[in-house]
Amino acid sequence: MKLVDISIPIRDAMAVYRGNPPVRLRPFKTLRKDGVDVSELCLGSHTGTHVDAPNHFIKGAIGIDRVDLARFIGPAWVADLRRVRGGIGAADLDRARIPRGTRRILLRTSNSRLWHPARAFTTDFVYLATDGADWMVDRGVQLVGIDYLSIEGFGVEGAPTHHRLLGSGIPILEGLDLFNLRAGRWQLAALPLRITDGDAGLTRAVLWTS
Amino acid sequence: MKLVDISIPIRDAMAVYRGNPPVRLRPFKTLRKDGVDVSELCLGSHTGTHVDAPNHFIKGAIGIDRVDLARFIGPAWVADLRRVRGGIGAADLDRARIPRGTRRILLRTSNSRLWHPARAFTTDFVYLATDGADWMVDRGVQLVGIDYLSIEGFGVEGAPTHHRLLGSGIPILEGLDLFNLRAGRWQLAALPLRITDGDAGLTRAVLWTS
Repeated sequence: MKLVDISIPIRDAMAVYRGNPPVRLRPFKTLRKDGVDVSELCLGSHTGTHVDAPNHFIKGAIGIDRVDLARFIGPAWVADLRRVRGGIGAADLDRARIPRGTRRILLRTSNSRLWHPARAFTTDFVYLATDGADWMVDRGVQLVGIDYLSIEGFGVEGAPTHHRLLGSGIPILEGLDLFNLRAGRWQLAALPLRITDGDAGLTRAVLWTS
Repeated sequence: MKLVDISIPIRDAMAVYRGNPPVRLRPFKTLRKDGVDVSELCLGSHTGTHVDAPNHFIKGAIGIDRVDLARFIGPAWVADLRRVRGGIGAADLDRARIPRGTRRILLRTSNSRLWHPARAFTTDFVYLATDGADWMVDRGVQLVGIDYLSIEGFGVEGAPTHHRLLGSGIPILEGLDLFNLRAGRWQLAALPLRITDGDAGLTRAVLWTS
């Protein structure tokens, strides 16, 4: 089983979504002084590769610890949307040859280039448009992933894509690196940290072929 | 596929290993004020359910981001060691009916009761003794897990169990909750966060039967 790491490395001062807490990693104990290396991390819940929980945008909705784990492991489809600029709409998804019945969809866009090399946060990324989110809901998709720090267009008023997906109980896997990845069927594991009532959970996301 | 969560919940002020950083979770943005919930987490790298990397104790060894991912997903054996007090030795492991060739071993001890209900950090937990660690190395085990915050006996001088396992490149999965879990063969996923040169990675650990 050959595993492909589709997670973003977590490091001090890495790029985060605008307005989110900065990432600070510091040595807390060191081999030289203490005989052991232990670090302290301070970071936002939506840092790097992470899963948005319904309560991120929906009042009274469940936190990341209560989302069914089965959504995060199993067959997934990597859809090639590299030619889309701006918002991915329903028509783009119709053309993307995603098999009916697909439960987990990862959107491979031109965003993945932004990780190679890693650079400062940019607002000009490809996102899932409102009618693209409706498409996911209508298809009964269980998990949607994308290769930048938000699935929402930057500055889109009211966060309609998040509201539609999370309001339908669909967690969102953000901050993926799908660079150079073959489109098509894969097996996915992207289990978020079990943070009590958390609005998101960081995750180590991997793909493999079975 | 029925998934069993063997991770400890992460929450504010949860129990941590003595001398480790406290866990602080706080709202950074809120639905009421900002229209979105975002949290900030400050915590130690060895909080809750996590994987120790070789560089935790071994100078110049690899960090968590460079450990082969294949160690963290696949068949695992849950060994029933509930009757052991103190250190689990080679003789205990010999008696535990662990099949030869087992690559991932999770030690189910009386520790798991310490999570039900969760309580303050205790120093009186069951651990893997030095000759138990040698047993793992000799058997070619790829991953060892245990159901408390350290695999080392509290106060054991020189951390010999960590040195033997990590010195042989065997990552250690700590902070598992194996309460009420059937001993025997399972499938495991326990992929640690991809922290660049990290001495550990928090993880969401799950089991299932295939």
